[in-house]
Amino acid sequence: MVIAKTVVIALGGNAILQPGQKGVYEEQLENVRKTCVQVVAMMEDGYRVVITHGNGPQVGNILIQNEAGSGQVPAMPLDVCGAESQGLIGYMIQQSLSNLLRGSGESTPVVTLVTQMVVDKRDPAFQKPTKPVGPFYDEAKARRAMAEKGETWIEDSGRGWRKVVPSPDPVRIVERDAILALVESGAVVVANGGGGIPVVDEGGVLTGVEAVIDKDLGGQRLAADIGADVFLILTDVPRVAINYRKPDQMELDSMTLDEVERYQREGHFKAGSMGPKVEACRRFVVNCGGLAIISSLDSAIDALKGRAGTWITANGERKPN
Amino acid sequence: MVIAKTVVIALGGNAILQPGQKGVYEEQLENVRKTCVQVVAMMEDGYRVVITHGNGPQVGNILIQNEAGSGQVPAMPLDVCGAESQGLIGYMIQQSLSNLLRGSGESTPVVTLVTQMVVDKRDPAFQKPTKPVGPFYDEAKARRAMAEKGETWIEDSGRGWRKVVPSPDPVRIVERDAILALVESGAVVVANGGGGIPVVDEGGVLTGVEAVIDKDLGGQRLAADIGADVFLILTDVPRVAINYRKPDQMELDSMTLDEVERYQREGHFKAGSMGPKVEACRRFVVNCGGLAIISSLDSAIDALKGRAGTWITANGERKPN
Repeated sequence: MVIAKTVVIALGGNAILQPGQKGVYEEQLENVRKTCVQVVAMMEDGYRVVITHGNGPQVGNILIQNEAGSGQVPAMPLDVCGAESQGLIGYMIQQSLSNLLRGSGESTPVVTLVTQMVVDKRDPAFQKPTKPVGPFYDEAKARRAMAEKGETWIEDSGRGWRKVVPSPDPVRIVERDAILALVESGAVVVANGGGGIPVVDEGGVLTGVEAVIDKDLGGQRLAADIGADVFLILTDVPRVAINYRKPDQMELDSMTLDEVERYQREGHFKAGSMGPKVEACRRFVVNCGGLAIISSLDSAIDALKGRAGTWITANGERKPN
Repeated sequence: MVIAKTVVIALGGNAILQPGQKGVYEEQLENVRKTCVQVVAMMEDGYRVVITHGNGPQVGNILIQNEAGSGQVPAMPLDVCGAESQGLIGYMIQQSLSNLLRGSGESTPVVTLVTQMVVDKRDPAFQKPTKPVGPFYDEAKARRAMAEKGETWIEDSGRGWRKVVPSPDPVRIVERDAILALVESGAVVVANGGGGIPVVDEGGVLTGVEAVIDKDLGGQRLAADIGADVFLILTDVPRVAINYRKPDQMELDSMTLDEVERYQREGHFKAGSMGPKVEACRRFVVNCGGLAIISSLDSAIDALKGRAGTWITANGERKPN
């Protein structure tokens, strides 16, 4: 008997919401359905699948709704809004994917787990909030929030002021054992949405914190914690490039760990885009010795087979998977 | 080896939000923590626990936030708001309960599953919406929604107009196999919050519908589908009473199925309060032959031992559990 390889798929924002869309539910559901067509194809190729996903636009909308309704009902903290977004997005994925699977004659269960991610209270990120979240304010309102609540706000690209929160490193998936039990039972698991709900662990007591975890770094932690064979980041570009948007831009079929680290030192990968994706892949290969891939959503299958995407492995090997 | 009995606990609204509270997060979390103290005691008595819960106030608040923010971001449909509330409440319960368990030296995982409940499209409830949801409107706005969207609105107790949605019977838990796998792995599972996200099944394609499922009837379906030994409804009264609030009011220690059906025919149990709880217990005993209990939150342990609450069984037996 061949044991199926387990692949953790990290879905980028475009898998759920396309650029220019406002987030009407039917649009999101249709995007998710198209994404799930790719996932079904992977499963038909014999992979066991665990899905994680970003939640930026969705939790952003929930924060705006919380702010808009705050005169009538109490606004929820950021960690709770993250939990809500896991419910929202997980529901779309589990419904769409299981519909498609049943259409192919498969009864594989698809389930979503609310997932907490432990972060370190002493993580330097807590001293330096960098990640903008929630609605735009005018300067006066932002300065009041800074003075009254000790929050950090920044002027964001001329569009107004926005609160920034820390983006600490993910340390440990709280619900790891349950995810493993579900995977072993044959279920497709949607977990750790939005990088996980950030919690600190103080002597065994978990408490939610106001922070956001990068979804690719969080996805790597998930993949490593459950011992996945492949960590697959699906985004909106087909491959990782060095010298990005310069005359000598070069797309890469593969990278060794040595190459990744050299390109990182040379500053090829931007913090807001490819940086955390490449770093997440590097960590996965270091932690698990497996295969990490960065590819576009619509070439996911080819990427797993070694015909598309950028493969990151310890020694740069690239053979059919 | 003694196989532990599985109890499905249906938490009432007061387990999460007390009357008079507005829903500030810290209040809700503290209520949940106190509720979880009871759950830990049940687990220490050797029960395997599955938790379900209401979501009325929470989904109500999410609907108000959606309405308030609708000028800026698209409002989500009711089924999606239900999924969000499962994330919100499940997160509170799983964090609080696992904190308490770790405090007692237990590492039992506690996890929340986003749960869909199939309802029948031909359920007569769809012809007769009865359940008020969301914000209050003035009459003009309500009449416009009725004319433009074909919705049903009612004047609600002099407080304004409210949309009403169908409350169909729960038919089948979609995520049953995953819940069973998790229970068998030793996890405490939080599932089917708010009675489950209502979906219709059309040839294997599940689609969310605008409806709400009674959380006790949904909890019964959960308990029956996973073959629980005990179905325990925790509410704000210690026992079921007949002739409620009349001079001859009588609290009941136990009911046989025959007695339940006679009292139901005699109209002892109100539709909006004890009616669905008693009916849920009746169905559980009919379906599974087990024990159903209605009790108050703070006598949960005594109720399981047969020293409190109302026991409902086929023949009215009442022995230590």
